[in-house]
Amino acid sequence: MANIYDHAYELETALRNSEEFTQLQEAYNAVMSDEAAKQMFDNFRNTQIELQQKQMQGQEISEEEVEQARKVVETVQQHPQISKLMEQEQRLNQVINDVSRIITKPLEDLYGAGEGEQQ
Amino acid sequence: MANIYDHAYELETALRNSEEFTQLQEAYNAVMSDEAAKQMFDNFRNTQIELQQKQMQGQEISEEEVEQARKVVETVQQHPQISKLMEQEQRLNQVINDVSRIITKPLEDLYGAGEGEQQ
Ligand SMILES: [Ca+2]
Ligand SMILES: [Ca+2]
Repeated sequence: MANIYDHAYELETALRNSEEFTQLQEAYNAVMSDEAAKQMFDNFRNTQIELQQKQMQGQEISEEEVEQARKVVETVQQHPQISKLMEQEQRLNQVINDVSRIITKPLEDLYGAGEGEQQ
Repeated sequence: MANIYDHAYELETALRNSEEFTQLQEAYNAVMSDEAAKQMFDNFRNTQIELQQKQMQGQEISEEEVEQARKVVETVQQHPQISKLMEQEQRLNQVINDVSRIITKPLEDLYGAGEGEQQ
């Protein structure tokens, strides 16, 4: 038991010290310390969350909303610091997804073998 | 980068060799090797998944369905091998949630500090 948590904390430290995380940190701080960039980024995030929530709740999304969201995405993509931040987020997400797949492999092996041949 | 994955694989091995996982494996195999228990468990899981999907899609769940689900839960809880399996699943889920919270702490620290004081 302690063993699992020891390894989890070691992994946490490795993630925290990784190039992926430190570069995300830099990109995030660059955006947050620029008031205009921060507002643009917050606006982008809020728009995304709003649309996702509507989608999950099965609410209809109007053409105007789709168009508005498209414009917000276009704007942030043209902002060097924000697009850098989004790129770093994607890189770290990839690492987190990989890690998550690795550590849940035992469960996948167990439940994936559920049908057919008994182990 | 390699460092992160090395630690992830070490964590995976620790999880796979943990008492929590090996006991889950035993409980799962005990249910799967008993045809009646397996059918009861599959029925329980399918009922759960069906209701969750309806809920997520905002569909109404009838009184009959709630009552039916309640009966299925009652039945599996009274089955020693299945209730043992569910208990072991909860134990491992707790460990996985703890691990997940530990390794995403850097992101929580970064984004949680987003408002208010700059770092
Ligand atoms: Ca099997
Ligand atoms: Ca801050």
